[in-house]
Amino acid sequence: MSAIPNVLAGRYASDAMKAIWSAEGRIVLEREFWIAVMKAQKDLGLDIPQEAIDAYERVKGQVNIDSINARERITRHDVKARIEEFCDLAGYQHIHKGMTSRDLTENVEQLQIRRSMDIIMNKAVAACVRMAKHARQWRDVVFAARTHNVAAQATTMGKRVAMFGEELVHWAHAWASAMERYRVRGLKGAVGTQLDQLSLFGKNAATVQELEQRICRHLGIESKWINVGQVYPRSLDFEIISGLVGLSAGPSSFCKTWRLMVGHELCTEGFAKGQTGSSAMPHKMNPRSCERVNGFHAILKGHLTMIGGIIGDQWNEGDVSCSVVRRCVLPDAFMAADGLFETFITVLDQMDIYEPVIRTELNRYLPFLMTTTIMMAAVKRGVGREEAHEVIKEHAVAVSDDLRHGRISCNDLLDRLGNDARLRLSREEIQQIYDANAGDTGMAAAQVDGFCAMVDELAARFPDGVEYAPGAIL
Amino acid sequence: MSAIPNVLAGRYASDAMKAIWSAEGRIVLEREFWIAVMKAQKDLGLDIPQEAIDAYERVKGQVNIDSINARERITRHDVKARIEEFCDLAGYQHIHKGMTSRDLTENVEQLQIRRSMDIIMNKAVAACVRMAKHARQWRDVVFAARTHNVAAQATTMGKRVAMFGEELVHWAHAWASAMERYRVRGLKGAVGTQLDQLSLFGKNAATVQELEQRICRHLGIESKWINVGQVYPRSLDFEIISGLVGLSAGPSSFCKTWRLMVGHELCTEGFAKGQTGSSAMPHKMNPRSCERVNGFHAILKGHLTMIGGIIGDQWNEGDVSCSVVRRCVLPDAFMAADGLFETFITVLDQMDIYEPVIRTELNRYLPFLMTTTIMMAAVKRGVGREEAHEVIKEHAVAVSDDLRHGRISCNDLLDRLGNDARLRLSREEIQQIYDANAGDTGMAAAQVDGFCAMVDELAARFPDGVEYAPGAIL
Amino acid sequence: MSAIPNVLAGRYASDAMKAIWSAEGRIVLEREFWIAVMKAQKDLGLDIPQEAIDAYERVKGQVNIDSINARERITRHDVKARIEEFCDLAGYQHIHKGMTSRDLTENVEQLQIRRSMDIIMNKAVAACVRMAKHARQWRDVVFAARTHNVAAQATTMGKRVAMFGEELVHWAHAWASAMERYRVRGLKGAVGTQLDQLSLFGKNAATVQELEQRICRHLGIESKWINVGQVYPRSLDFEIISGLVGLSAGPSSFCKTWRLMVGHELCTEGFAKGQTGSSAMPHKMNPRSCERVNGFHAILKGHLTMIGGIIGDQWNEGDVSCSVVRRCVLPDAFMAADGLFETFITVLDQMDIYEPVIRTELNRYLPFLMTTTIMMAAVKRGVGREEAHEVIKEHAVAVSDDLRHGRISCNDLLDRLGNDARLRLSREEIQQIYDANAGDTGMAAAQVDGFCAMVDELAARFPDGVEYAPGAIL
Amino acid sequence: MSAIPNVLAGRYASDAMKAIWSAEGRIVLEREFWIAVMKAQKDLGLDIPQEAIDAYERVKGQVNIDSINARERITRHDVKARIEEFCDLAGYQHIHKGMTSRDLTENVEQLQIRRSMDIIMNKAVAACVRMAKHARQWRDVVFAARTHNVAAQATTMGKRVAMFGEELVHWAHAWASAMERYRVRGLKGAVGTQLDQLSLFGKNAATVQELEQRICRHLGIESKWINVGQVYPRSLDFEIISGLVGLSAGPSSFCKTWRLMVGHELCTEGFAKGQTGSSAMPHKMNPRSCERVNGFHAILKGHLTMIGGIIGDQWNEGDVSCSVVRRCVLPDAFMAADGLFETFITVLDQMDIYEPVIRTELNRYLPFLMTTTIMMAAVKRGVGREEAHEVIKEHAVAVSDDLRHGRISCNDLLDRLGNDARLRLSREEIQQIYDANAGDTGMAAAQVDGFCAMVDELAARFPDGVEYAPGAIL
Repeated sequence: MSAIPNVLAGRYASDAMKAIWSAEGRIVLEREFWIAVMKAQKDLGLDIPQEAIDAYERVKGQVNIDSINARERITRHDVKARIEEFCDLAGYQHIHKGMTSRDLTENVEQLQIRRSMDIIMNKAVAACVRMAKHARQWRDVVFAARTHNVAAQATTMGKRVAMFGEELVHWAHAWASAMERYRVRGLKGAVGTQLDQLSLFGKNAATVQELEQRICRHLGIESKWINVGQVYPRSLDFEIISGLVGLSAGPSSFCKTWRLMVGHELCTEGFAKGQTGSSAMPHKMNPRSCERVNGFHAILKGHLTMIGGIIGDQWNEGDVSCSVVRRCVLPDAFMAADGLFETFITVLDQMDIYEPVIRTELNRYLPFLMTTTIMMAAVKRGVGREEAHEVIKEHAVAVSDDLRHGRISCNDLLDRLGNDARLRLSREEIQQIYDANAGDTGMAAAQVDGFCAMVDELAARFPDGVEYAPGAIL
Repeated sequence: MSAIPNVLAGRYASDAMKAIWSAEGRIVLEREFWIAVMKAQKDLGLDIPQEAIDAYERVKGQVNIDSINARERITRHDVKARIEEFCDLAGYQHIHKGMTSRDLTENVEQLQIRRSMDIIMNKAVAACVRMAKHARQWRDVVFAARTHNVAAQATTMGKRVAMFGEELVHWAHAWASAMERYRVRGLKGAVGTQLDQLSLFGKNAATVQELEQRICRHLGIESKWINVGQVYPRSLDFEIISGLVGLSAGPSSFCKTWRLMVGHELCTEGFAKGQTGSSAMPHKMNPRSCERVNGFHAILKGHLTMIGGIIGDQWNEGDVSCSVVRRCVLPDAFMAADGLFETFITVLDQMDIYEPVIRTELNRYLPFLMTTTIMMAAVKRGVGREEAHEVIKEHAVAVSDDLRHGRISCNDLLDRLGNDARLRLSREEIQQIYDANAGDTGMAAAQVDGFCAMVDELAARFPDGVEYAPGAIL
Repeated sequence: MSAIPNVLAGRYASDAMKAIWSAEGRIVLEREFWIAVMKAQKDLGLDIPQEAIDAYERVKGQVNIDSINARERITRHDVKARIEEFCDLAGYQHIHKGMTSRDLTENVEQLQIRRSMDIIMNKAVAACVRMAKHARQWRDVVFAARTHNVAAQATTMGKRVAMFGEELVHWAHAWASAMERYRVRGLKGAVGTQLDQLSLFGKNAATVQELEQRICRHLGIESKWINVGQVYPRSLDFEIISGLVGLSAGPSSFCKTWRLMVGHELCTEGFAKGQTGSSAMPHKMNPRSCERVNGFHAILKGHLTMIGGIIGDQWNEGDVSCSVVRRCVLPDAFMAADGLFETFITVLDQMDIYEPVIRTELNRYLPFLMTTTIMMAAVKRGVGREEAHEVIKEHAVAVSDDLRHGRISCNDLLDRLGNDARLRLSREEIQQIYDANAGDTGMAAAQVDGFCAMVDELAARFPDGVEYAPGAIL
Repeated sequence: MSAIPNVLAGRYASDAMKAIWSAEGRIVLEREFWIAVMKAQKDLGLDIPQEAIDAYERVKGQVNIDSINARERITRHDVKARIEEFCDLAGYQHIHKGMTSRDLTENVEQLQIRRSMDIIMNKAVAACVRMAKHARQWRDVVFAARTHNVAAQATTMGKRVAMFGEELVHWAHAWASAMERYRVRGLKGAVGTQLDQLSLFGKNAATVQELEQRICRHLGIESKWINVGQVYPRSLDFEIISGLVGLSAGPSSFCKTWRLMVGHELCTEGFAKGQTGSSAMPHKMNPRSCERVNGFHAILKGHLTMIGGIIGDQWNEGDVSCSVVRRCVLPDAFMAADGLFETFITVLDQMDIYEPVIRTELNRYLPFLMTTTIMMAAVKRGVGREEAHEVIKEHAVAVSDDLRHGRISCNDLLDRLGNDARLRLSREEIQQIYDANAGDTGMAAAQVDGFCAMVDELAARFPDGVEYAPGAIL
């Protein structure tokens, strides 16, 4: 039986993200970490022969997962197995001095997390840039905004995109803020007191501080926790996963709405050459990528519950009740988020709108969409706001009802309003209001411009994301 | 870069569970399903050449995942890719007639689920049987029960095991009930109306019913849904995952409590020859398997949120917004539960208690543990219940305080109570109460017997689980 | 400042459900429980004066929440406060003998839960009955089923209702099964050994068993746990909340779908006289009750996480880390579920469909909906299934595209298929297929009948629910 | 039947928090908001008579919840009911002009949220300050740190407090960052385009911008969203709730650990005069406030799932499927967090440690705790790290085993190590190591100082929290 692959990695995540979380990649990161510690220990006075370090360096790329697993089946301790494998390969026992397992694993995992955060940031920026492009492109395409899934007032397609885009921009900033707050655990020892490194260095606190700082520099994350036990607080992991959920909320809502719009034939998420919509029904062109984005979002919310299950429940200086949870959640959440953005950016690249259908729908609803404007006019004439509301509601409900029951085939709301003296507006006046305001989308265009400016600012801050292009998706 | 393995499969799940969820295994299940449909269709009158069926039979074991993936990258439709692969291998186009993708995938996934449910049931029974064994073994080992993590009254070690065991038995019955309710979607077609099978069979409803029934028989699940769309209600998946969470609650609480007890040196989860407790601290013998069980439980609760994210949110006759979620949750939840039971049964097989330590602790607390009995005696003497409570509390709190501040080194609570006239009990009487009741554990032994009887009954119903022995765990 | 009301109780729950969970009602239930224990203790030989029991009986209805709260502020123990209040009112100290707080609270809460379960069962049945009514009523109303929110094949409106209805029936049976499994904790004492009752009754086990059985009879739940600590396993609560989530899944999916359909003007959830759709837009008639059902469902899933947070985490014989959680979740989850069903049944009572709109939509999509039938015909002619699929897809996609870009205004798919020799079907043959099959909904009607039969059976089992009529909703 | 109170408000939340979320308070906030809009509209040119504004001002405090509820039962629209009530009280119809309901409710709710955030920030700071106080106080109290709940190495009590304290400081900064990012929705109208305000002001965009800015100033939150629909993105709510979960993680882990320590009699959370530990067992002094903090934390994680259920699921320009969820979650999450901090600060104020017990425990474990130091010494002697580890493990496991089985009564590990030639350390040398290092806690004291400095900085930034003292808790 072949190994069961990780579904998120195998089907959805990008190569860059997978490289960070692969078993082999992880082993190499760990070995580099051990070597960095040895070098720093040697530099700071510990008696470690250069040949030993050289030997470790030479074999660090020889990763034999099977052999490591065989060792773990005996020791029942994953890090001990990896220590023994590396030492046997090198022929020395100089790594892991003064260290506890978590000195290795916490820091290496934080490195994986931190690198993954960069990838996700760039993709969030890439998505924002594309949303701004569409917002600009469709800035003035008027259509029927819906509240409660029912036509409400006119807006523009660009503004609809901008609405969900601004949510994503918000979370990109929150993500940036979490990146700034991110700190490594450092080389703190078994219960966080750095006792064993101190023992190695004759209780010289300054040397141990210097050692730790060098290791942080090796990781590329200079900021560190001061008071930890064997592990750093798992709420730091929670902060990251919760950021991924937040980042995926805007894309998910956008995709939900796009699925609704596809149902009204207003748009498409794209349909590639050779693509099959349904194995049964040849005519189907389904918004399956949008649906998939919604799926990823649901997965991430489950990951949040998982990681939530190990916070606020830390005992003393730590244990491994969080271990299996983090082994699953950390890679999977990043790969789910990565897959989500790969899919979402692809949708943004391939989607399109059908302006003829949009116009037809708009025209059908326009008399309804104008009711607030007509109400404001009546109010200016001195009709009480609540009275005007009641009169218009009465007619609008009746017109709707007649249309849906097939009693009329044409929307005659304007006539009915013009004929009702309570509104104090003649049919002509109502027509003038209609002509002057039909399809008025208020500040929509200016708001789109505001969104684009936000994205420009974000892109300037994270320029690496601007040019990102996703790989082909399944 | 090698494929990223599924952590739960790679480290924790049993071979039997992995076989059900492997990619290759799944492909074969699907092909057998298609062949079963073809055969039934042929038998019921459809013109399908026997050579075609033979050809499909011949190649059904030739599973080339890479080739299928390559096809999916073009069609962007996983089932279409698998149809084409199988047809090209066989040299015919006779499978999937009148079927939609979900006619294949829903039923095959339900087969995987149903088989996994059997495995889990057997392991739950295996765990119950072992818990009953320990409950019997330690039926009369008296020790200090704790509420609020503070010594409360005496109980027996067997009863403590039985307490968590009875929770597991409860959920085993709930699981059995879910298994009885479990129904397959069947061969319902694109929107659930069986239209295309009806078309194939000249609109003959009886034939289509017979076809579906044969397919259910092939799956080994005769009960089926009547009204579905493209998919069956995802709350059926939710019911399963929620059952897994329930099944894991007792084991998880037991392991939490065992970890507490290890902290008091009352017991061990076992420590194998060659095992390493800590890579830093050679003296450590950690309850890491118990911790892992708690970790699995947290994972399952996250899976519940994931699956919860796709229920109550089904649109019309279905879509694939649930697809990526189910691809992850279904195998992972079963593998997490499987790993949990593998680990838990191993703990049950290797754990032990330290009776000398247990006795020492009990003796230290006994005067406190007797306070309810002394209070009952005072009440019988006519002291008001609330008054007696107050007097005893006053002395108990003072003794505790003196002990913890080192003002006394020996628990003199009985003396203080005997000297307090308000209780109407002499020192001698109190001593008599003490001697007659110290270590009285009430109905504990009888309750243990009750638990064992429950387990016997369960084991009789599911005898396959009784002899189950887990593989070696990491 | 007035007290902050419980939102779910104040706005949504029925009077019957609120009565179970009101503070005053709870106090009375507890006092009745204490009295039942006293009476049984007296009958079984304990020396409790009849005047004391009479005194307690007399004052049991004098509930002064403020006084109890004042006591709790001193004792910091809610049950102790209620003991003192009741004893002071009665002028005796005879309640709570041999009992621990949880002997009172667990059992009374289980009584509340069990009664709430009955209410919910009846409402689930009431909803099923109404769904069956609509399924029958619209059994033959043909319309365009959708998968991926895109028109797929024809079905009937009755079948769509039945689809979600069958999900609810499934969960009604699961709920019934949970009700049968439901057991009370009983009178088990501080750590579950019944030690203190045994002390009171001279260590006579049979008497204590009889006492407990009488108390269960008082509660109306004869089945009980054998091995518990201070508390029963919280996974029993989890089972209930998870059942509420399951019960609400079908209604929630139905309401999501109804909201989609309202967006296509196919139907309404009803719009009462005097109702306002929007304070701004007088024309709005929003499916706000359906939306609310979705909201309740989201709340229940959060309750599931809450209760999930206290299972698998029980320490020793218990503590109160679950207390504040259960104080919130138990009433709130039942009130949310109650509000959900009140709202859902109201929707079922007031909703309607617009057949003219349904017909118009169906006609627009019919040529697409027929593609599987045409494909089956081509297959019978000997065209390879995958080839036929490809050809039809080619044309269907092109027609769709032309329509949406305004290049054609009429669906000419049948012409294009008739003109393509690869399908081996003439235009006339295609027209014949169309005429013979347009609007064919396969087994839909029979499936609806199957659903109605299921509901009849359920209704016969739980007749109290059949006639239930909800109160007016906000 | 009296109204069912909100449990969190009634039992746990502070008056300040309740004032923000009371029904009456909310009505007044809304009316003040309407008046602010009217005034600004008048100032900017709308014809609103001053007498009308005066009339509204006069009656704004006349809050009759029953009357409003009666109106809502007719309109089935909560805001419409409140408009009508306010207008009838004032005798005018001038409020709500150009507004949609959400113009009112979103902004007022955001005001409630923002004010609640301030309260929580101050309490988080108050908790940090107290933790720093204890960290300083117990900075040098040595005791046995535990990993896996098993003694590991020495640390200080101050450092243990600091460890959880630093987690809280981290989240206080995250919370501050969320406060800075917080933006109001503003006066955006029915679909977010500000159309109706533009209509009222002759399509003058600058005037409408000015109007909105004045309203933001009224709210005290100047930053606002640009692109929204009827509602702001619900992931903003998610960000807040997720911050509350994060803020509660450190306190919850601290309280879990404190409960563990109470079980070892190392400390107490305090036990007030008059307090009852158990209604059954007079000797009990339970860490019930710590348990309660854990309960609140579980509740908040459920709230996170609830709010997570309404993000990534927003349709078009909005609807009310989120309404019932937010009505529950927003007040309840803030009240749960508030209750958590009230309880936690009380624990911090009343807790104490038992130094004699701490010393006794430490002495028992010291030989084990020294094994890493002895191992480092052996390594310096040239013993291979992994070999030294193996030898020490062998002896430590044997000593443990002998002690727990009662074969020895005194820890003789040092003797055994001194007698084992493989370690190359004589018994005297080992004793010297022991004497020089026993109870060495490495950098613990310096780390405590680091924590205190962090708290000083935080307190300087949020000085209002420093002096906060909680009310009496139940």
